[in-house]
Amino acid sequence: MLAESREEVKIAYSTADHPIMQAISTYKEIDKVKGIVYERMDEWYSIYFPELQGLNAEAYAEIVLNMKDSESVTQEMLEKAAGAAGTEIFKRIIGNSTRPKIGEEEYKALRELAKTEKDLTELQNTLDKYIGESVGKALPNVTYLIEPKIAAELLLKAGSVERLATFPASTIQLLGAEKALFKHLKFGGRPPKYGVLFKLPQLGNASKKQRGRLARAYATKISIAARADAYSKRFIADKLKEQLDKTIAVIMESKD
Amino acid sequence: MLAESREEVKIAYSTADHPIMQAISTYKEIDKVKGIVYERMDEWYSIYFPELQGLNAEAYAEIVLNMKDSESVTQEMLEKAAGAAGTEIFKRIIGNSTRPKIGEEEYKALRELAKTEKDLTELQNTLDKYIGESVGKALPNVTYLIEPKIAAELLLKAGSVERLATFPASTIQLLGAEKALFKHLKFGGRPPKYGVLFKLPQLGNASKKQRGRLARAYATKISIAARADAYSKRFIADKLKEQLDKTIAVIMESKD
Repeated sequence: MLAESREEVKIAYSTADHPIMQAISTYKEIDKVKGIVYERMDEWYSIYFPELQGLNAEAYAEIVLNMKDSESVTQEMLEKAAGAAGTEIFKRIIGNSTRPKIGEEEYKALRELAKTEKDLTELQNTLDKYIGESVGKALPNVTYLIEPKIAAELLLKAGSVERLATFPASTIQLLGAEKALFKHLKFGGRPPKYGVLFKLPQLGNASKKQRGRLARAYATKISIAARADAYSKRFIADKLKEQLDKTIAVIMESKD
Repeated sequence: MLAESREEVKIAYSTADHPIMQAISTYKEIDKVKGIVYERMDEWYSIYFPELQGLNAEAYAEIVLNMKDSESVTQEMLEKAAGAAGTEIFKRIIGNSTRPKIGEEEYKALRELAKTEKDLTELQNTLDKYIGESVGKALPNVTYLIEPKIAAELLLKAGSVERLATFPASTIQLLGAEKALFKHLKFGGRPPKYGVLFKLPQLGNASKKQRGRLARAYATKISIAARADAYSKRFIADKLKEQLDKTIAVIMESKD
């Protein structure tokens, strides 16, 4: 009996979707962590260089790694790290002569903080690559229609490929909008129109009304694709994509 | 006028305590971040090696970095990473033959996660060193009485050396217990006995009643030391320490 239940556990854990879910939730947690590290770096380093505030994390970290004091500042380095914003920052740094000096040990700590920010980005790239490959295997049809990371998030919300395949389109459309849905059901007001699918880049160019319709169109095809991935294992996504593209075109042509 | 206010800003920012406060709050945030990374690593890796659960973060990360599959496990490596617990883990790993295989790409991501955990510990060590040196300069008397990190936390709560020096002992005793104090004032119940000072290792061996008295004794001497650090700049902490040690001995001899 023990051996049997062991075998069951093995099967449950070795299903390919379990590690994917670990990877996508790690990716999301690292997003949070990057935010914390960025905030600490920004607040601390801006004692010495308030000119950098507002820069994105990557450019900011690159500059911290290369700029100990205003003597070591070059326009070239700033432009390489921050593009056009770098030119502006260079002018402002050069124009401000009142600046406290940063200590040796303190700069070392700040550099390590900036290095951490960069390493976290690299970790996310590795996770991204792994998610792309593994979710492509687990959900070949679904990932033909939408980005691997969005597919992985749907999988995370569902819990398994099999469970995702049992969901009707309306559920898939609202996966990730559980809180908003609960609020709607309890307190009234507008129902949510999308959850995870809000991240589809195609929704970016659409009006508010079009977005809801787009999310529904995607959800409809995703639910069919997920069933193929879970049960028939046949590749049908090319046809689904064709139909989906047509529906999208119709929605985007409509005035509102 | 602009030049004048610029000068003022320069003075405000170049006071030595501002970077210390940045360093200690970074240290505390990195604690949080390490917890998040550890949790992700543990949850993911335990699909393959549930035997590691409960290990501390450092040992856990070391093992993840060295153990791709159960074939690469050696007793020596586990003992080096986790001490006596490693021996137990080795037995359990060898005894369990049902184990899913970890993929190449997936292990790469897990290794990077473990590497991140280790790098964060190193960042904390650098911060720790910097805090030790800088708070020793800003608060030589206070750090003669208590650990630099606890002194830095008091400084963070106060906002500046000057402000810390204005606090009576009763305030210093409760710095960091603001929430508990508020709860007490609003809803009644027991008042808090200590805030940041709870972290004093000396409180570890004391009874509940002794702890409150110890915190008060420390707070009394810290408030005198802080005033010397802010105003007279004279070193008086050796005498304070002598008196403090006597008071501590009396408290610890009392039965409760």
